[in-house]
Amino acid sequence: MQELARYISYIEKEIEAIDFPKSPSNLYDPLRYFLNLGGKRMRPILTLLGAELFGETKENALSAALSVEVFHNFTLIHDDIMDEAPLRRNKETVHTKWNQNIAILSGDVLFVKGYQLLVKQNPEHLQPLIELFNKTAIEVCEGQQMDMDFESRQDVTIDEYIEMIRLKTSVLLGCALEMGAVIGNANDSNRKLLYNFGQNIGIAFQIQDDILDLYADPEKFGKQVGGDVISNKKTLLNLQAFQLASKDQKQILEKLSTEKNLKLKIDQTKELYEVIGARAFCEKEMEKYHSIAMKSLAEIQIEDNAKQTLKGLAEFLMKREL
Amino acid sequence: MQELARYISYIEKEIEAIDFPKSPSNLYDPLRYFLNLGGKRMRPILTLLGAELFGETKENALSAALSVEVFHNFTLIHDDIMDEAPLRRNKETVHTKWNQNIAILSGDVLFVKGYQLLVKQNPEHLQPLIELFNKTAIEVCEGQQMDMDFESRQDVTIDEYIEMIRLKTSVLLGCALEMGAVIGNANDSNRKLLYNFGQNIGIAFQIQDDILDLYADPEKFGKQVGGDVISNKKTLLNLQAFQLASKDQKQILEKLSTEKNLKLKIDQTKELYEVIGARAFCEKEMEKYHSIAMKSLAEIQIEDNAKQTLKGLAEFLMKREL
Repeated sequence: MQELARYISYIEKEIEAIDFPKSPSNLYDPLRYFLNLGGKRMRPILTLLGAELFGETKENALSAALSVEVFHNFTLIHDDIMDEAPLRRNKETVHTKWNQNIAILSGDVLFVKGYQLLVKQNPEHLQPLIELFNKTAIEVCEGQQMDMDFESRQDVTIDEYIEMIRLKTSVLLGCALEMGAVIGNANDSNRKLLYNFGQNIGIAFQIQDDILDLYADPEKFGKQVGGDVISNKKTLLNLQAFQLASKDQKQILEKLSTEKNLKLKIDQTKELYEVIGARAFCEKEMEKYHSIAMKSLAEIQIEDNAKQTLKGLAEFLMKREL
Repeated sequence: MQELARYISYIEKEIEAIDFPKSPSNLYDPLRYFLNLGGKRMRPILTLLGAELFGETKENALSAALSVEVFHNFTLIHDDIMDEAPLRRNKETVHTKWNQNIAILSGDVLFVKGYQLLVKQNPEHLQPLIELFNKTAIEVCEGQQMDMDFESRQDVTIDEYIEMIRLKTSVLLGCALEMGAVIGNANDSNRKLLYNFGQNIGIAFQIQDDILDLYADPEKFGKQVGGDVISNKKTLLNLQAFQLASKDQKQILEKLSTEKNLKLKIDQTKELYEVIGARAFCEKEMEKYHSIAMKSLAEIQIEDNAKQTLKGLAEFLMKREL
């Protein structure tokens, strides 16, 4: 998608232009570093596309788009502390390169920066924009807490898992798009439909992530295939496998969870998930949320032509190589 | 000040009424716990008084007042992690009672809650209120970073120290008052004067804190006298003592910093600070900022009668027992 590349470079340029003071350098150096680690920049692009869908220019949506990206990066800095992650995009995380206190505090500042960007928007849109941003920020934290709580729980249901990924990752896609719709003066119904499109694409995308982690082509995946299996992470595949497994299959799965030979562990888990039907279930779930998303997009009362870029983006997101 | 007690109980009641969801309980239980640990509630009262000064009711300023208190509590939760503090107001801190990840994340949510309260204000005041809140939040983080940086620096100047306490604690008092002024539709000049009153009272109050830590009457102080000396904390007293000390006095001070007999350490440091003139210097500095504050208050173009409560509060704050 050539068009997408233009949006990405527009956002990249504007992120580079975000200005932080020189001092205290322990507060601002980590932010200059982290914001320029790259990333797909999908969220800010959604805000631009949401605004354009309703006839507003991308320039007028820019500060809101950046606020979403800045917020996303704030959550990554704090999540990396909580997950004790040494690397992010193959570079050191903030708490590793500096220290944990600096990661907490520079994250906090970045969060405020998000509000500083958002408040640049037209005053008549401020209340709905900030309310949406607040609600989403709280939901993202709730999702992260659920994810942490799941680590020590053995009774996580499929519904709880879907709710967790909805909160932790998908509501922000809905928020990014709806912000654009607010800036474009869309009516309430269209705003809500666009939000639902984003949220459900987000859920589908996360489910796809779970599937790709195990079934991706190693040549094209870019990170280790089977990472979730190695760390016994609760994913939709894993939860569904345990749900559908026979007593014997459950025993094999439990034995595999302590298997030291990682190649064997991955290969056998992969095969068993297929036999049990967990992979097929996940693919069906993914398609379900994808089609809910596309239905929401179709229902937005605006000429179909205007929706082409968003449709293209949704297709692009869902066509990562298996 | 009986009047003050009425404001405190009004704020206490409204803080108790802040509603958090039940779930995830690991996210919201810490907030219910921490917000009800008490405290002087001076900051929200300043917002109420700021609004009343310009003829607005305290009820109309309430959500902004609560947003300041909620923000203050958010900073305490995160600061307690960074300072590895086990106790706050004689109760366990959040990261001690739960764990560090929960303290990071529930702090983040509380920060958003501050914005949720603020956005309830009249839409026509939103932009100035949020801009002021953002600017202050960033300054408070900068102050905390400076404070942490000072721990490993031996060349902290008096000016840097004053700038650190201005950012870390005083700007929030200015912000609290100015928010009230914005809500009361004060003009720019009056807003700025009220902010300066709060900021300078804040600096005077912090300097008084440094003095009280060593020179307070143990019977009336409520916490251990000499705590800063025991931990060799950089305070205005300490920095100024090293600045004014002769070569011999410097050697004694350095020797005292490793003294194991704590009573001896405190007593001798206390006496030496007086001999050197550090205590007198701090008292003069405190009075300087106090009088800058009172001058700002006097210059606010509004009848003197309306200023009585604020004057009383300033006197109350500055008359803690030595």
